[in-house]
Amino acid sequence: MNRLHDPNQYSFASDNYSGVHPQIMAALNTANDGHQPAYGADVYTAALQQKIKQLLGPDAQAYPVFNGTGANIIALQSMLPRWGAVICAQSAHINCDEGNAPEYLGGMKLLAIASEDGKLTPELVAKEAWGFGFEHRAQPAVVYISQTTELGTCYTPDEIRALADYCHQRQMKLYLDGARLANALVSQNVDLHTMVASTGVDMLNLGGTKNGLMQAECIISLHSEAQEAMPYLRKINAQLGSKMRYVSAQFLAWFEHDLWLNLARHSNAMASKLASSLAEFPCINLTQKTQANAVFATLPPEISARLHEQFHFYDWNEQTHEVRWMTSFDTTEEQIDAFVAAIRQATAT
Amino acid sequence: MNRLHDPNQYSFASDNYSGVHPQIMAALNTANDGHQPAYGADVYTAALQQKIKQLLGPDAQAYPVFNGTGANIIALQSMLPRWGAVICAQSAHINCDEGNAPEYLGGMKLLAIASEDGKLTPELVAKEAWGFGFEHRAQPAVVYISQTTELGTCYTPDEIRALADYCHQRQMKLYLDGARLANALVSQNVDLHTMVASTGVDMLNLGGTKNGLMQAECIISLHSEAQEAMPYLRKINAQLGSKMRYVSAQFLAWFEHDLWLNLARHSNAMASKLASSLAEFPCINLTQKTQANAVFATLPPEISARLHEQFHFYDWNEQTHEVRWMTSFDTTEEQIDAFVAAIRQATAT
Amino acid sequence: MNRLHDPNQYSFASDNYSGVHPQIMAALNTANDGHQPAYGADVYTAALQQKIKQLLGPDAQAYPVFNGTGANIIALQSMLPRWGAVICAQSAHINCDEGNAPEYLGGMKLLAIASEDGKLTPELVAKEAWGFGFEHRAQPAVVYISQTTELGTCYTPDEIRALADYCHQRQMKLYLDGARLANALVSQNVDLHTMVASTGVDMLNLGGTKNGLMQAECIISLHSEAQEAMPYLRKINAQLGSKMRYVSAQFLAWFEHDLWLNLARHSNAMASKLASSLAEFPCINLTQKTQANAVFATLPPEISARLHEQFHFYDWNEQTHEVRWMTSFDTTEEQIDAFVAAIRQATAT
Amino acid sequence: MNRLHDPNQYSFASDNYSGVHPQIMAALNTANDGHQPAYGADVYTAALQQKIKQLLGPDAQAYPVFNGTGANIIALQSMLPRWGAVICAQSAHINCDEGNAPEYLGGMKLLAIASEDGKLTPELVAKEAWGFGFEHRAQPAVVYISQTTELGTCYTPDEIRALADYCHQRQMKLYLDGARLANALVSQNVDLHTMVASTGVDMLNLGGTKNGLMQAECIISLHSEAQEAMPYLRKINAQLGSKMRYVSAQFLAWFEHDLWLNLARHSNAMASKLASSLAEFPCINLTQKTQANAVFATLPPEISARLHEQFHFYDWNEQTHEVRWMTSFDTTEEQIDAFVAAIRQATAT
Repeated sequence: MNRLHDPNQYSFASDNYSGVHPQIMAALNTANDGHQPAYGADVYTAALQQKIKQLLGPDAQAYPVFNGTGANIIALQSMLPRWGAVICAQSAHINCDEGNAPEYLGGMKLLAIASEDGKLTPELVAKEAWGFGFEHRAQPAVVYISQTTELGTCYTPDEIRALADYCHQRQMKLYLDGARLANALVSQNVDLHTMVASTGVDMLNLGGTKNGLMQAECIISLHSEAQEAMPYLRKINAQLGSKMRYVSAQFLAWFEHDLWLNLARHSNAMASKLASSLAEFPCINLTQKTQANAVFATLPPEISARLHEQFHFYDWNEQTHEVRWMTSFDTTEEQIDAFVAAIRQATAT
Repeated sequence: MNRLHDPNQYSFASDNYSGVHPQIMAALNTANDGHQPAYGADVYTAALQQKIKQLLGPDAQAYPVFNGTGANIIALQSMLPRWGAVICAQSAHINCDEGNAPEYLGGMKLLAIASEDGKLTPELVAKEAWGFGFEHRAQPAVVYISQTTELGTCYTPDEIRALADYCHQRQMKLYLDGARLANALVSQNVDLHTMVASTGVDMLNLGGTKNGLMQAECIISLHSEAQEAMPYLRKINAQLGSKMRYVSAQFLAWFEHDLWLNLARHSNAMASKLASSLAEFPCINLTQKTQANAVFATLPPEISARLHEQFHFYDWNEQTHEVRWMTSFDTTEEQIDAFVAAIRQATAT
Repeated sequence: MNRLHDPNQYSFASDNYSGVHPQIMAALNTANDGHQPAYGADVYTAALQQKIKQLLGPDAQAYPVFNGTGANIIALQSMLPRWGAVICAQSAHINCDEGNAPEYLGGMKLLAIASEDGKLTPELVAKEAWGFGFEHRAQPAVVYISQTTELGTCYTPDEIRALADYCHQRQMKLYLDGARLANALVSQNVDLHTMVASTGVDMLNLGGTKNGLMQAECIISLHSEAQEAMPYLRKINAQLGSKMRYVSAQFLAWFEHDLWLNLARHSNAMASKLASSLAEFPCINLTQKTQANAVFATLPPEISARLHEQFHFYDWNEQTHEVRWMTSFDTTEEQIDAFVAAIRQATAT
Repeated sequence: MNRLHDPNQYSFASDNYSGVHPQIMAALNTANDGHQPAYGADVYTAALQQKIKQLLGPDAQAYPVFNGTGANIIALQSMLPRWGAVICAQSAHINCDEGNAPEYLGGMKLLAIASEDGKLTPELVAKEAWGFGFEHRAQPAVVYISQTTELGTCYTPDEIRALADYCHQRQMKLYLDGARLANALVSQNVDLHTMVASTGVDMLNLGGTKNGLMQAECIISLHSEAQEAMPYLRKINAQLGSKMRYVSAQFLAWFEHDLWLNLARHSNAMASKLASSLAEFPCINLTQKTQANAVFATLPPEISARLHEQFHFYDWNEQTHEVRWMTSFDTTEEQIDAFVAAIRQATAT
């Protein structure tokens, strides 16, 4: 098959526009050839299981799946009774970017709370954490947070612990959507165990696709009680892959020599470089802290229009002229420089 | 990442135990690097779209997804009202191998019909194609067939046409689960268009995973009327991949120089070789015609037990001592010879 | 409002064609006037709760609902994991008469087993009670039986106990759809406790609608473990009535002086009278034992056609010319005599 | 069955605490006796069908059901694709009082909008009516309003027409939850046709239970296109009653001599009397216009506590000390006087 695309093309649209890291490609090749038992009974998935236990403790269990929507909805189902509700931020991925998958697949009600920076606090959660035992209300059973948030901000371990404690005191569980968890870890120089196991997170998705992997996500349960439900839920939600060795091998290569953290660190650095470069433009204002690999800013619509002619990126809020610029593991300093130069040109005219 | 498995390991358990063909691996590398729009807006998916239209007509539309269960259930949802039922063989994959995914995700009722060879006929379908307009009965709206069947048998184009005609006369649709469609095509030396477009199939899954691809399936609608629903259904069933270029590129490489057909032809030949080798063993009886890459046979349980010590394969029916031996695109003549030699040894003692 | 119907009209179509017993109408009037807390917090529902505990033990709990489909599907949901399956007879009401409500509302897979007389036995159940722990199979978690069956036959307490024991040894539950439970009790002169509590039934529906009540069914859980789920499941399945006092009051009146049993006894007696009257017609053959209030028989289609001109009844199996004649609490001896006379006339010509 | 309750008990908790009007009870008796075909094939349901067509035009079709949650969710399903969303006020009944039934039964996403008086306007709806054709967003397909609203306020026909026009210009439908529609009609002295047919409402629930009926609601579709789906949806959502004549007969009696409007007029008058009586209490402030049969007010918590000792009513908002007092068709002037006297006493101390 011939190459159909320009491998030098780049954008600031999303980290899922990027490709797959060469070491990950190498791992796919390494795992290839010969027969391996299907549906997760292969040696790479077994090794991944061990790796996750090593990172997060002996009760941790990994469930590789295909994508983030699948991961989120399966994990949430495992923690929800049929009459359960999930408390989340209004800007949450499950509320804004997954269609009605949470409702359609899982039957769950989302209780969404306005949050300026995309983060929840016990005080915010309390707005919807009520009505326990009242049959007319979908029962709040899980709090969903994402790390990083959809707005590129990060929770500290203390903030997560406060949420976990709040949840557990009310028989609720805390779920962490870690589609960009690596970015949050390196942003704060905190290791995985400290961020999720020590803080009391009950389940999480460890997202690979947005950080150099090829369609690879991994649900992790921190407690053994999820182990009965998870294999069945993954199956009936159509997220059980037969050739799972290729998902698991990617994660193994990703963990090797901290590749995952290094990729995220680079991505964050590129966002940071972009954000600081914006200081020279009085007409551009950051709207969120740049804590990971996303830059949110407002700028005059005519500037935005000119940039759109050259670069892919998302208009986040058309009313307020807010845009999102995302960097990726493969974003280069030259690309940032070129983008800033383009802004300079667009604002100069 | 180090290799953890023995690349010379082989089995007769399932064609999903096999790996990924080298040309497919090459295609993944070719499609890599640089940014491409996510969620199917990339150039590889566009090229796949064109390829499918070229193969199946201008109304045909391709929807790459992750796995067969996802493909089947999404396609069926697009053809079913909320109160719909699917007529299928009792041995159908959706009835036996997908848990309660059809019921849980799609709310559909399966009306399953006993069939000796896994195939349906209009006469068999008629057993459940009734009660139209009667509100107390889930309305039969789709007939599901698989090609090859779960029992390794194949439909001829005439047999499919008869089913399609039967369906269309009753406002039902015909869905073809083509998890092993390539094997059926080469088995009969029939091209894709003749098999599915000319016969009147309404939708199908073109299965890649069991024929040399890495987690790649593709729903194809033959009619334009499915085009409104499909993007949404794929999304809300969590089967929309962000990095779709890697699925589409695999299919492009698979179609090139008829790789897909050549792989299937080889796999079938290996099954045929095995089946004909069994003639020398009076205690082993074929229970289904070997029309593709599966051999079904009964054999004494003690023989089976000895073979299980050396080889992975499935006991299909423990009561009747029936087993299934599957070949794959990478099964070699030597592997068949070694397996037959093992049978010879097991039966000799 | 004027009467629009002929109160002397009668039929042998179904016991749900009949009206409401005068003592039940009186109870509705008695419960009327003044305010009572909604959603089951009224005094009549409290009294019903006590009555059920008195009949079935202190752990028994009553959940009044609107109709049988609602009762069945809610009760089953309370005993099923999201990945669960229900084993039932092919002729079961949930399999034949509730559309795809079990699949659509509850996501459950029905594993249906052929049964000549509509009854299951441990041997029959064993055909589908397998695959425990295998993630690719919907997990059998409940056995559904109905008493009387859809074919008018009855289980003895011993037969139910054998099923319950079989279930419990495999961590499955036994559910009894008692849409016509009263008819089965009087048929065998067995009391409610002996039939369901002593035998090990886990949950049941106590059907009122087919035995003189106005849209009144009552789920009963025999064990306290169902008590957390049931109020929520009844709510989210839209079967929680605000003016529940009117459902509960009907049941209270129904239990008084064994009205429910007397009505069922009369209904059974009328079926028995009809069945024995048929002995004089050589061309009419009973196809099931007449153990309750249904008579199943085959007869020449031309006779059937003549009877249809005068009477409502159901053709059960058009291939075999089998019909179903049902009696009701309000069927009179004269009506049976008139019907037999009509048969006599139809067969004479 | 003996009377267990005090028929003189009254409350201001909800209009579903009230009983059934004597003329409705009489209708149940009139419809009783003899056999009538089940599942809506009876003469009373046929007469109701004619009545609805007479009131709302020849395309109108009635579907009697058991309760409001069932009515809402079935009607919404008929207007929604599987990937659809419903725009509603945050205070909407489907958002606050039906658990996760909309999500669990129908898979629908609710897009809830803050509204001070519980009413939507095109401007408010516009906040969520976007993203058409974007597969990542649940597609807004229906706007849900209730008349009266949960806050006791009413839409004018012009306001409804504006919403219907807005919806239809965007291929959305307008659904009106008329749990208390009669109260809104008499409040504005507008007839049913003018309120819903002339304004462009697509479907509605005509609520009987809160206005003197016994568990009787009626979905009405205004257009013939809903007629294929509705019988099936009612069935698979377990809201198809076998003895439907008793639901239909209630509605027939309710329409006779405008009983329904007279009951609602009285109920409204009682609320109005209460609201105007509150003027004498400086510490009690109305928080919503009293346009129907609900009075919303804030009052000092200690006053509230004293009143709770004598009367059932709901605390609406514990933070703001807002309460809801509802009147019913059977509320008497004396009861209002007694309640006001109690307030007087509670505030005097």
